[in-house]
Amino acid sequence: MSYSKNMDFKTFSGIATFFRANWSDDWSAVDVALLGVPSDLGLTQRTGARHGPREIRNQSCNIFYYNPLTKVIPFEQARVADIGDVPLRSAFNLDTLTTELHEYYVRLHKAGIVPVTAGGDHSITYPILKALGAERPVGLVHIDSHIDCTDRIADSTVHHGAPFRNAVLDGVLDPKRTIHIAIRDPAAEFEQFAEETGMAVIDIDRFYDMGIKAVIAETRRIVGDGPTYISFDIDGLDPAFAPGTGTPVVGGITSYEAKRLLTGLRGLDIIGADLVEVSPPFDSAGITALAGAQMMFEMLCLATEAFQMRGESARPR
Amino acid sequence: MSYSKNMDFKTFSGIATFFRANWSDDWSAVDVALLGVPSDLGLTQRTGARHGPREIRNQSCNIFYYNPLTKVIPFEQARVADIGDVPLRSAFNLDTLTTELHEYYVRLHKAGIVPVTAGGDHSITYPILKALGAERPVGLVHIDSHIDCTDRIADSTVHHGAPFRNAVLDGVLDPKRTIHIAIRDPAAEFEQFAEETGMAVIDIDRFYDMGIKAVIAETRRIVGDGPTYISFDIDGLDPAFAPGTGTPVVGGITSYEAKRLLTGLRGLDIIGADLVEVSPPFDSAGITALAGAQMMFEMLCLATEAFQMRGESARPR
Amino acid sequence: MSYSKNMDFKTFSGIATFFRANWSDDWSAVDVALLGVPSDLGLTQRTGARHGPREIRNQSCNIFYYNPLTKVIPFEQARVADIGDVPLRSAFNLDTLTTELHEYYVRLHKAGIVPVTAGGDHSITYPILKALGAERPVGLVHIDSHIDCTDRIADSTVHHGAPFRNAVLDGVLDPKRTIHIAIRDPAAEFEQFAEETGMAVIDIDRFYDMGIKAVIAETRRIVGDGPTYISFDIDGLDPAFAPGTGTPVVGGITSYEAKRLLTGLRGLDIIGADLVEVSPPFDSAGITALAGAQMMFEMLCLATEAFQMRGESARPR
Amino acid sequence: MSYSKNMDFKTFSGIATFFRANWSDDWSAVDVALLGVPSDLGLTQRTGARHGPREIRNQSCNIFYYNPLTKVIPFEQARVADIGDVPLRSAFNLDTLTTELHEYYVRLHKAGIVPVTAGGDHSITYPILKALGAERPVGLVHIDSHIDCTDRIADSTVHHGAPFRNAVLDGVLDPKRTIHIAIRDPAAEFEQFAEETGMAVIDIDRFYDMGIKAVIAETRRIVGDGPTYISFDIDGLDPAFAPGTGTPVVGGITSYEAKRLLTGLRGLDIIGADLVEVSPPFDSAGITALAGAQMMFEMLCLATEAFQMRGESARPR
Amino acid sequence: MSYSKNMDFKTFSGIATFFRANWSDDWSAVDVALLGVPSDLGLTQRTGARHGPREIRNQSCNIFYYNPLTKVIPFEQARVADIGDVPLRSAFNLDTLTTELHEYYVRLHKAGIVPVTAGGDHSITYPILKALGAERPVGLVHIDSHIDCTDRIADSTVHHGAPFRNAVLDGVLDPKRTIHIAIRDPAAEFEQFAEETGMAVIDIDRFYDMGIKAVIAETRRIVGDGPTYISFDIDGLDPAFAPGTGTPVVGGITSYEAKRLLTGLRGLDIIGADLVEVSPPFDSAGITALAGAQMMFEMLCLATEAFQMRGESARPR
Amino acid sequence: MSYSKNMDFKTFSGIATFFRANWSDDWSAVDVALLGVPSDLGLTQRTGARHGPREIRNQSCNIFYYNPLTKVIPFEQARVADIGDVPLRSAFNLDTLTTELHEYYVRLHKAGIVPVTAGGDHSITYPILKALGAERPVGLVHIDSHIDCTDRIADSTVHHGAPFRNAVLDGVLDPKRTIHIAIRDPAAEFEQFAEETGMAVIDIDRFYDMGIKAVIAETRRIVGDGPTYISFDIDGLDPAFAPGTGTPVVGGITSYEAKRLLTGLRGLDIIGADLVEVSPPFDSAGITALAGAQMMFEMLCLATEAFQMRGESARPR
Repeated sequence: MSYSKNMDFKTFSGIATFFRANWSDDWSAVDVALLGVPSDLGLTQRTGARHGPREIRNQSCNIFYYNPLTKVIPFEQARVADIGDVPLRSAFNLDTLTTELHEYYVRLHKAGIVPVTAGGDHSITYPILKALGAERPVGLVHIDSHIDCTDRIADSTVHHGAPFRNAVLDGVLDPKRTIHIAIRDPAAEFEQFAEETGMAVIDIDRFYDMGIKAVIAETRRIVGDGPTYISFDIDGLDPAFAPGTGTPVVGGITSYEAKRLLTGLRGLDIIGADLVEVSPPFDSAGITALAGAQMMFEMLCLATEAFQMRGESARPR
Repeated sequence: MSYSKNMDFKTFSGIATFFRANWSDDWSAVDVALLGVPSDLGLTQRTGARHGPREIRNQSCNIFYYNPLTKVIPFEQARVADIGDVPLRSAFNLDTLTTELHEYYVRLHKAGIVPVTAGGDHSITYPILKALGAERPVGLVHIDSHIDCTDRIADSTVHHGAPFRNAVLDGVLDPKRTIHIAIRDPAAEFEQFAEETGMAVIDIDRFYDMGIKAVIAETRRIVGDGPTYISFDIDGLDPAFAPGTGTPVVGGITSYEAKRLLTGLRGLDIIGADLVEVSPPFDSAGITALAGAQMMFEMLCLATEAFQMRGESARPR
Repeated sequence: MSYSKNMDFKTFSGIATFFRANWSDDWSAVDVALLGVPSDLGLTQRTGARHGPREIRNQSCNIFYYNPLTKVIPFEQARVADIGDVPLRSAFNLDTLTTELHEYYVRLHKAGIVPVTAGGDHSITYPILKALGAERPVGLVHIDSHIDCTDRIADSTVHHGAPFRNAVLDGVLDPKRTIHIAIRDPAAEFEQFAEETGMAVIDIDRFYDMGIKAVIAETRRIVGDGPTYISFDIDGLDPAFAPGTGTPVVGGITSYEAKRLLTGLRGLDIIGADLVEVSPPFDSAGITALAGAQMMFEMLCLATEAFQMRGESARPR
Repeated sequence: MSYSKNMDFKTFSGIATFFRANWSDDWSAVDVALLGVPSDLGLTQRTGARHGPREIRNQSCNIFYYNPLTKVIPFEQARVADIGDVPLRSAFNLDTLTTELHEYYVRLHKAGIVPVTAGGDHSITYPILKALGAERPVGLVHIDSHIDCTDRIADSTVHHGAPFRNAVLDGVLDPKRTIHIAIRDPAAEFEQFAEETGMAVIDIDRFYDMGIKAVIAETRRIVGDGPTYISFDIDGLDPAFAPGTGTPVVGGITSYEAKRLLTGLRGLDIIGADLVEVSPPFDSAGITALAGAQMMFEMLCLATEAFQMRGESARPR
Repeated sequence: MSYSKNMDFKTFSGIATFFRANWSDDWSAVDVALLGVPSDLGLTQRTGARHGPREIRNQSCNIFYYNPLTKVIPFEQARVADIGDVPLRSAFNLDTLTTELHEYYVRLHKAGIVPVTAGGDHSITYPILKALGAERPVGLVHIDSHIDCTDRIADSTVHHGAPFRNAVLDGVLDPKRTIHIAIRDPAAEFEQFAEETGMAVIDIDRFYDMGIKAVIAETRRIVGDGPTYISFDIDGLDPAFAPGTGTPVVGGITSYEAKRLLTGLRGLDIIGADLVEVSPPFDSAGITALAGAQMMFEMLCLATEAFQMRGESARPR
Repeated sequence: MSYSKNMDFKTFSGIATFFRANWSDDWSAVDVALLGVPSDLGLTQRTGARHGPREIRNQSCNIFYYNPLTKVIPFEQARVADIGDVPLRSAFNLDTLTTELHEYYVRLHKAGIVPVTAGGDHSITYPILKALGAERPVGLVHIDSHIDCTDRIADSTVHHGAPFRNAVLDGVLDPKRTIHIAIRDPAAEFEQFAEETGMAVIDIDRFYDMGIKAVIAETRRIVGDGPTYISFDIDGLDPAFAPGTGTPVVGGITSYEAKRLLTGLRGLDIIGADLVEVSPPFDSAGITALAGAQMMFEMLCLATEAFQMRGESARPR
């Protein structure tokens, strides 16, 4: 069992790890890793995402270790640990940073570890997908207000608005098994890329017209039973629920809807997930980091269940 | 009539009492009392509820004296006053504080006064119910993210997660006439207590699947026409609506839904109510205290109407 | 085209104008004007609306220049500019200020400019309507938690709760083509004025019982195809979405609902609009000003499209 | 003795009056009155002073009832009460409001009550001085970053930058017994008025060059032993100590220096005092209101001691 | 060497321990321990100190690992580690919590570990002194706005205003070697205890009249070369420097003065230290926790140097 | 004269430019330029400086157009304008951004314009000095908590801790005419560079031991009458005065001391200045941006006077 020793009722006590899980450097003892990428070099608008992982850890301590609705207790069902933040040497150059990240996740992936990552800005998802989808393109559930398939900005193809375009062009993301949800800020050109490559898009009006249950059903239909990644940009939520983010877009979904959507994905073959774009300096009363932590917890539960389903828990401990 | 003299259009003017009602020490002139219990000794997680009553008073001044939807004007329909905060001698020990509170509410109850209380943490509801349900177990409408029927924590059966277990075990709360609404963080053991004793639970998914009108109907069916208490833990609302609370749980109801739910309880025999767990130091822009004040006002209207229905207004003034 | 030169991807760069539009003093080169009225002399409760225009400008820089759902790009479809704030000499007297405002908008109207205004408190809408409805009474879509048809307060008929009463009594607003939406704080007497004059009211319960599509349809039916003004009081939103306002009322609509409602008004003959009652000093993380900016942008799109429909874009540039 | 019953160690408990003193409407039982003027019609820059009295009351509860350095206990040495806020009918017009205020303070003065007022903006000091100095011009200790002797603004001689010019021109303030301290934002013309009328000015550089003890000595020398009023504009403090104010000026004095200065005025014939320009919406963590409350308490101690010295406590109680 | 691996230039990266030191459970490998006591049961006024240790850890990451003025690098000069928070079973009763704390520090002391503690409220210093002074009464440097020698409150001799009275009465604190600095809120009775037992007091006026160098000299003279404890209540600083605390008192010292004072204590035989009363929920922009972290770091440097001087570093590693 | 037309008493009115100066693109009409560099790519710790220029503009509107202590009115004494932010193409790479900045300032310098810049992080000062010191190395007054002469970090010699090392190595800064003031966080190696190159350092203890007048005299002595640049890192102030910055260091100077220091530099041959490292997302109540704006204004006055002294105002207007 991977309960942290300070995971008692006193949520305010002790050093803050994700969900007060154990902090471990021993990768051989980890099935599902909670980790942070404190980076915001890929941002184009408001900054602050580098401070995300630490504050998400802080707020995550308010969340208990089991999922009251699904009864999942990830820390009992797999060896879960907070393995810290990715140690990054780069500081002033997005390209070298992207390379470093890719190398790190390749190592993690080879170690058989399922990563559940807290960003950092959305540019980090590209190197993660590149590592996880190297053998076989992955499917994607993407919750966001933007489609993030933009072409180059400021002479760079890599930035926080481009991870999924990059991943498709690299052949590590299967556009046919990709769905974008809660979208409300696509530019014409980005939509074109989504359309041409056959991605599914549920924009905000369609989201509310369909209703949450139909959205879940459609999502499951698109991604099917292949290996699937979840990428949750906190700006998918309305700014009232998530003010602390880099590119807030008014008119988003509620945290209940997001939570229910994630819960509805049980049984999919989740091989990794990330929660990105929490910018604590722009937050208010910590609600963005708290909502981010909650979504990360839901994805941890999904990833842990999928890990068990795949039978990888047979690995010696 | 119990209008305060400073209850004019200048909501920012004057000493802050609940809804700018008169401040009175003369219990013989009061039918329905607004009062505070500035205590947070029963908390297990984030603190600050002791600061609740004063800040709820502060924000309540933004609320006008009539209910625009139901046309109720509580201050005209009964003798309503702010009777201040319960004077508590205890400061460092939850057991003696609970005893003190119980004695106070016994006196209030004997004086024929209907209490509408602002907490303080949720542990205060146990001594209140013990006083109000002494002759006959009361029914309960409970809005919260937690069921609050937990067993002992840190060697104590009394704490903010246990009031309804305590009240049922003491025979002052009728579990068959109890309904928990908006629940999303029950542990297995607590649910068991609810199930074994026959309490009704509308968890958050069921809440949204039923719709607000069905929730109201089910609530009315459960509590029936017996004497009923309402306990509103502000963390029933989503943290976007109520960040300032001790145990926030992402994915809750909106303040509109809560307000409509309360309005839907008109005609029940409300004998008291409380609004608990507002923690101003964790609030943002005062919205939690404002939402708390609004819910308290709705409950004041319900309690006042019920008071009139019971004909107790025949008491000499 | 009226793109500002600093309207690139760096939303944080440059002097803050509304939506980073060009700042222009040359009225002959403007079709649709964005402008501010930094005034809060008409407030009765919480203050701060004088700081609204500057902070809405600040937050509006986070909003891109096109409307992703309707594909409207106002800056391409008409000559749009930020013409600054109305220069007001009055500082301590609401009556003289109201006169000044009226004179200014008469000049603007005569110049053939469509005004999209950021308040300021709601008292500013009266002199605006007086200017715009002088030849022919206008219709009105009014989103607010209050009906704002109150009679005199503190010996004054002019204040932030009275603009529509004043406008009807002056014959510049057509009550039969007026609809109030999201109302939840009407007093009996105000409702009477609305009823007697034949205004339509969709209060908050009716709003949710009807659903957003029916609300849109009813709104279109009421205002018809005559010249129509939109007045959006930010307190129509719930305080969770808009804490920074003078008279917050718990239990309002979400920003998604408001945005969708506005989008649903495409094709109406919008001749002007305002967004009022943003009070930055009471805001939290800038979300109120951001929501206000978003609503202002939606109204800018509507006003620009209507301007084109009317063929006034034939004016030489 | 005028201790409030809730003036115990639980500073967070009970309805917030100034320093938790008794709330009284019975003027015949009051020697020294604590009261508020929730008005900001005289402001020219940032608004919010109308919210000052309530928040100063709130923060004042953190201050104990005795002065640890001087051993003064005002509530034992005179009949001190919070008499609420001045009831103002005017809301939209500074001139009528000034008249109202004057009439109120004339009545208070005739009742033999010493007023210690919390503003409100600085324009309120003019009608107060007009009432208190009617029989004999008073002396003045004025702590502020501005001299506040400006001529008309926006066609009005009355505003928050003019109280002392107005008072001198009305003959109710003796310029020869007036001293301005901590000044750092005088315009040439205002200095001219000060110089021509013979007022003393200790600007911020002189303040630090002299040292606090010399400043105290010079102040005592100027005002002498005649009746003296103290007017403390919170913007005399540096914005780090008092961010919540309408016209902050960087580079001011510390709260220790202000407190020591006031303590150094013991023995002067203080006949009234005010603390103005606290603007809670611009405050941070309540420190401005707390500093304001502390300065108000120091002035209460001075006023109470002076009251005793004058032997007016011989009045029947 | 005890550098943490994440102690690089990226202060925002990694799990937050005190000063990013290693987190260790192995007491045999620790000379000087950084630890937290997340408790606020002893508070009488504003609450929140239970959240102190985690937020001080958070802010401490902004502080580098060496002391630029004294050139001390504690992590090189002794085996320093963050050993987490004291695991406390008690939650609702101050007496049992005090017993628990005492037992813990007795064990720590027996292990030869020098504790540098982050509170928590000031009541924790009593059990710490009881453990450290058991063999021989210790001397004390106490920086605070209160003397904290109060007698019983609410029937309890143990609370945050009494640690030093308790310690003297228990014979573990030597009043003749005790000095209270920056005091500005003593009541008569508390001063009496200080005077009768022979404690030295430098109140705030004396502090500024003496000047910082003389204060340092006097402090060194009083405590001499015997074993000495430092207790720093963050409310010794002015609220502008430390708003986030339970009993703020306007008119305190600056953080520069506090830092210089501590630096001036080099060479004393420091055997432990604490930094108490940081209440993050009342903080603003984290400056209180940051100032607390800085003071804690200065005390860590002093304690490490003293540890070296005592030659205890000879212990096998 | 370069007064903006909205530079009246209503500081809250109008589009926010620096000090409400005119916004101009016509460099031929500008003597002294106010401009922003919204960049934070050079930061190593807390981020947010990219948001500095806009918020400094916002707060600068609270500052009036003349200097009350020196009587300087920069807008009358030279042609002063806000020329906007430097348009930067680079977004993700510090090296290319540094090159861009250098080219921009070369052009500005060739146009004979004196730049007074608002950062942005401190890395921007290097390209500025490289442009201004190309013909002749400049002298420097540097107010900061760090010396900023650090060698490479993360494989880059360019970052916010290195501008003055870079400038000296490039021969554009004269170390013998350089003085660092208020320093309190130098590492050994950085001091070495300062010492070896002959820079003067007044660390914080020396600052207070000397007193402000001696600091001014020493500063004047070091820089002499050659061309001199002033670089003010806002973290030179204590975090109580400037919480909103990237690398706050507890124990700094006050804003009064900083203001007085700057005023004491009148008559020096100031050829440019910058105010850097204001990070609005970490600010509280805007006081950091306000203090930054004030320091920028003082430097504007110095630069304008120096411009006049040099007789460059003879240029045709």
